[in-house]
Amino acid sequence: MIPTPVVLGLDFGGTKIAVAVGDLSGRRLGGTTIDSRAESGGAEQSLARGLAAAHDLLAEVAPGQELAGVGAATLGIPYDDHVELAPTFPGWDELPFGQLVRDAFPGVPVRLATDVKAAAAAELRWGALADCDPGLYVNLGTGLAIAIVAGGTVITGAHGASGEIGYNLRSAGDVYVDMDERTILEHVVSGQALETTGSARLGQPVTAADVFTMARTQPDAAVLTDEFVRELAMHLANLAIAVDPVRIVVGGGLVRSWDQIEAGLRRALDAAVPFPPELSVARFPTEAPLIGALALGVEAAGVVLGTEAFA
Amino acid sequence: MIPTPVVLGLDFGGTKIAVAVGDLSGRRLGGTTIDSRAESGGAEQSLARGLAAAHDLLAEVAPGQELAGVGAATLGIPYDDHVELAPTFPGWDELPFGQLVRDAFPGVPVRLATDVKAAAAAELRWGALADCDPGLYVNLGTGLAIAIVAGGTVITGAHGASGEIGYNLRSAGDVYVDMDERTILEHVVSGQALETTGSARLGQPVTAADVFTMARTQPDAAVLTDEFVRELAMHLANLAIAVDPVRIVVGGGLVRSWDQIEAGLRRALDAAVPFPPELSVARFPTEAPLIGALALGVEAAGVVLGTEAFA
Repeated sequence: MIPTPVVLGLDFGGTKIAVAVGDLSGRRLGGTTIDSRAESGGAEQSLARGLAAAHDLLAEVAPGQELAGVGAATLGIPYDDHVELAPTFPGWDELPFGQLVRDAFPGVPVRLATDVKAAAAAELRWGALADCDPGLYVNLGTGLAIAIVAGGTVITGAHGASGEIGYNLRSAGDVYVDMDERTILEHVVSGQALETTGSARLGQPVTAADVFTMARTQPDAAVLTDEFVRELAMHLANLAIAVDPVRIVVGGGLVRSWDQIEAGLRRALDAAVPFPPELSVARFPTEAPLIGALALGVEAAGVVLGTEAFA
Repeated sequence: MIPTPVVLGLDFGGTKIAVAVGDLSGRRLGGTTIDSRAESGGAEQSLARGLAAAHDLLAEVAPGQELAGVGAATLGIPYDDHVELAPTFPGWDELPFGQLVRDAFPGVPVRLATDVKAAAAAELRWGALADCDPGLYVNLGTGLAIAIVAGGTVITGAHGASGEIGYNLRSAGDVYVDMDERTILEHVVSGQALETTGSARLGQPVTAADVFTMARTQPDAAVLTDEFVRELAMHLANLAIAVDPVRIVVGGGLVRSWDQIEAGLRRALDAAVPFPPELSVARFPTEAPLIGALALGVEAAGVVLGTEAFA
């Protein structure tokens, strides 16, 4: 048997690093996930641990097989020498992200993307945004961001920064106030925000998922999740008015609490948007960035992808 | 001399109806403008007067020449049997808009568009949005709307309703409130809003332009224009964060007061947006919808347009 080439997908998130090895059609041959943050060590060690996990996985599931391409998705906007807009992971912005990934796989073509745009690409190609023109992908994870898809592609923006609505102004009172002097939307609507606010207001250390669980029975926690959904809904409704999408698709770790989020968003969209869009969970709610990274790896290998791999 | 074919462009705005006749390259041969609202007569009479003006103009500048195509832009979203989202002109929504335009020019191919998307197309093809990917067009006229351009085209939306940010929610308090029970953005940020609020708060009947003129010397008027620019800036900043445009281009009648609007918007974008976009007046600030309609007329005639006609 001649060993066939494989590709590698890496997704560096604020909580977890996910790695997968796939064949040239994007079909997954194996995967692993590690925590982003070890007790000791910062951003650089975290990236190194992810790259080491990738090497281990390749040795395990594709021994002796050529690595033909690498796709790497990350929180923030990746460049070879740094990462922009990654405030939720201290030190991540200073990493020479692209260079470190290339150095780890000498001679292998590498493609980089923001995690949310990779996720949107995966949903557009294989998932819940297929045939949506236009469509919106929303990531409710450690941070908050969206991606607009139109004309069969993900809108990247002039600086790769489209969709970074975590920076949104929350009211007219925020106008003219510098970014570091106002409460940006992500400080209120994100997994990390809910963890921080929840821990402070509920009097015990809680995760965002804990807050949603407690909200089922505790009024003080329900107030927090109600505020969270209301404020998220305002910004998604205004985006839906601007884009007039066929469908809004929501992914990210917080979709585990989707049954507590969906009704509020649905009601808000119906009340606010002239032509209310469909609303659903992503097909790959927590793995879309990784699947998008695999797709980038296949593209890096020079293979034109079809739409069937995950169909 | 063999008479050459011509095309017709019509722009039905809330204040004025503009008509132009052009050659098949889009070059204008003549034009006229009439008020949208006569003292007597409603929406249907207004449309009829516009169509009559078009016939007069054709007889004047292109006697005996074939009419090869008609492009018609309008406030609201035009369909053959009605118009959606045209609340600023009572009765306009009930007009069989497309049908009436077709009936006025039997046998001539007709294309319809919203005024703001026609304007954005004109700026993208010939004006200030050329080579912007993505870019934002903002119409500050009787009403308020934007258009997103990306991938060399104007994003239409699933229902032709993208960019209708006049319906935006103004705060989280607006979430879950039905559209007709909340103050939508257009009720605060638009030429009509400024006219209504200005007349009420300044104690005399004023136009939006009057309010801007008075704001140069009168503090009570300056409060109104400051509020106007601040609230507009909030929504444009959030759109710029979502889209990451190369440039925001502003057109519509209120750009006559651009020197009183630009500085506030510029400062707000610089403070709020991770990668602040360029900001400028449209190349065709008040005529872009008409020029876009002419382009639609040329396209209706079956001619593929180049980029040189207005270059």
